[in-house]
Amino acid sequence: MAQLLRASTWGLFPWRSYCSQKAKGGVCVNLMQMDQILELNLEDFSVVVEPGVTRKALNTHLRDSGLWFPVDPGADASLCGMAATAASGTNAVRYGTMRENVLNLEVVLPDGRLLHTAGPGRHFRKSAAGYNLTGLFVGSEGTLGLITATTLRLHPAPEATVAATCAFPSVQAAVDSTVHILQAAVPVARIEFLDEVMMDACNRYSKLNCSVAPTLFLEFHGSQQALEEQLQRTEEIVQQNGASDFSWAKEAEERSQLWAARHNAWYAALALRPGCKGYSTDVCVPISRLPEIVVQTKEDLNASGLKGSIVGHVGDGNFHCILLVNPDDAEELGRVKAFAEQLGRRALALHGTCTGEHGIGLGKRQLLQEEVGAVGVETMRQLKAVLDPRGLMNPGKVL
Amino acid sequence: MAQLLRASTWGLFPWRSYCSQKAKGGVCVNLMQMDQILELNLEDFSVVVEPGVTRKALNTHLRDSGLWFPVDPGADASLCGMAATAASGTNAVRYGTMRENVLNLEVVLPDGRLLHTAGPGRHFRKSAAGYNLTGLFVGSEGTLGLITATTLRLHPAPEATVAATCAFPSVQAAVDSTVHILQAAVPVARIEFLDEVMMDACNRYSKLNCSVAPTLFLEFHGSQQALEEQLQRTEEIVQQNGASDFSWAKEAEERSQLWAARHNAWYAALALRPGCKGYSTDVCVPISRLPEIVVQTKEDLNASGLKGSIVGHVGDGNFHCILLVNPDDAEELGRVKAFAEQLGRRALALHGTCTGEHGIGLGKRQLLQEEVGAVGVETMRQLKAVLDPRGLMNPGKVL
Repeated sequence: MAQLLRASTWGLFPWRSYCSQKAKGGVCVNLMQMDQILELNLEDFSVVVEPGVTRKALNTHLRDSGLWFPVDPGADASLCGMAATAASGTNAVRYGTMRENVLNLEVVLPDGRLLHTAGPGRHFRKSAAGYNLTGLFVGSEGTLGLITATTLRLHPAPEATVAATCAFPSVQAAVDSTVHILQAAVPVARIEFLDEVMMDACNRYSKLNCSVAPTLFLEFHGSQQALEEQLQRTEEIVQQNGASDFSWAKEAEERSQLWAARHNAWYAALALRPGCKGYSTDVCVPISRLPEIVVQTKEDLNASGLKGSIVGHVGDGNFHCILLVNPDDAEELGRVKAFAEQLGRRALALHGTCTGEHGIGLGKRQLLQEEVGAVGVETMRQLKAVLDPRGLMNPGKVL
Repeated sequence: MAQLLRASTWGLFPWRSYCSQKAKGGVCVNLMQMDQILELNLEDFSVVVEPGVTRKALNTHLRDSGLWFPVDPGADASLCGMAATAASGTNAVRYGTMRENVLNLEVVLPDGRLLHTAGPGRHFRKSAAGYNLTGLFVGSEGTLGLITATTLRLHPAPEATVAATCAFPSVQAAVDSTVHILQAAVPVARIEFLDEVMMDACNRYSKLNCSVAPTLFLEFHGSQQALEEQLQRTEEIVQQNGASDFSWAKEAEERSQLWAARHNAWYAALALRPGCKGYSTDVCVPISRLPEIVVQTKEDLNASGLKGSIVGHVGDGNFHCILLVNPDDAEELGRVKAFAEQLGRRALALHGTCTGEHGIGLGKRQLLQEEVGAVGVETMRQLKAVLDPRGLMNPGKVL
């Protein structure tokens, strides 16, 4: 639970989890004081961290090493919590999610035994030794055991970084640009979509001065020379797709402002309707289906009378609709939940998933069944039953 | 079994598997005639293939699409077999192994039910929906079910490609160069090590004219401009490490000759001692430990009186010692097996794995226990028991 609380600053997830836990009289285990970086292997590009070590704390520790850990869900989450929830975020399009960046886990199993998913002390790049236990525990949302240490893969820190924004005449044009950039093998580090409502909110909240239009925020990592080429190719592609207000931010301060604005999108959205809470959807679809689902979602939003904005990791096909809800208005909360469920089903109909990175928790258990089918859910239940036969770990979640 | 036979052209693995299967009176299911490419989603960078589709057949099909599938174990293996065995090979340093490139699997479970590990028809880039069943079945070596279709992630075909070779004064210098190239974030596509015995064998077998010395074979993918920079950086690094006989191969024919030689290393090694069979080891260690284990392995080889050469995916820390053995000489076969086991234990002592990509099969079951520990093996056994309670699938393998 502690892991989930640290890693889950999105939406109502921690609040819902916490309420359910309380209602059932469960125990929360707080691992935040286990906050040591246990081992750093610079030549091997790996590090072992305890649950209290956050993403920012690790990157501060790595500052002068030439390496960094790129998975960035926005919040300064616990890295073990990020492993438990298969977190991803803005850099996943280039560096992968936690699934690709966890090399080993130390897990306390429900019966108290200590499991090292890849074997004690191991931190190789690849292996074909038996079942992929690491992969099974990443994203298991605390339902199979308590993660007490995580071995992570590190990456070389980029020599140089450039960020950019560009505005588009339509959602379709922004997403088409994304597909073309990926097809051209431009190794873009971040490619984030914000709809015009979200841009307007970010302009107000973070004092930006961007066009109020469907917008891409991009970031490129590489050598100076490689960046020049990436920028040039990207500029050609977005201009072919009708982009305007194209601007680069090469200075660290300007870039920081831009990504702070992106990371504060949640709070910017909340500020659109003071006193309200946010409720975030999290579908992910094959990228070719992204324009239609975003356009349809915007139409549904207008029809529903709900207030919401859209922001997303468009390079992965994953986007969030941040809905604003008065927590004292049960009728409105019902409409928000119905909207989110309808959006989840729409993503499933387009061969997508109901959750790209936030997880199932309590709220998406029905959608999980529709997503993976009866045999998939039965298989997951078999795994849960054999690894946690008494149902002790994060009970009621996921399945 | 059919999958394993197609995917496992290394070493004695298929032979041993087959003998064991025969002795137990099992059934082999041949899926080679299921050879359709079921679905190609160019915009989504994904494809669905049946078990009879091989790596080369898929890439031939993709030839004019601008996309390709990069995982390349050398042999023209079945892609579903490659999923079953978590294959990797020469491109893994840049594009990952099968673990990172399988998006979904269709699996016939032991009781005949059909499982879609990510849900029927789904081919998204990422998901946090429940347990990672895809990850569990990739590399399960046919012990949990029969894979009848695999959804793969495709990559943009590189605009241009350059290969290179360079000779080094020592193993240490070759591996140091590898670490420095990775640290400099040069996105090298292939970086392969061949010791002087292997180089000599390749010179003879594939009519190359390379120095008989520890050698790196490299390949770079990118735009013309990006390649120039990658080449320049790499050249600086290898020269700082004392490389000589540095040569680039930009023409397709010259490159093909080089990689054909690398892929034929197995046969080149066999030709060193006509009439013998090959036995391949497969350890993988943290890259910082690679020089010491390679140097020690060469000393052990000399001391053992066995004939063997070394070739490896040095960017992943994975190398193969190809030992030549007279199959009619039981004493020599015993020495070969003892050597391989000792090498496996040496890798384990250096925080490595006994198998980077060939799998456990029958021969490495004891080493698997030492690698993942008692709790790890018990957990794997629990998974096997719950998913295949009657022990029908590839019995006796892995656990």
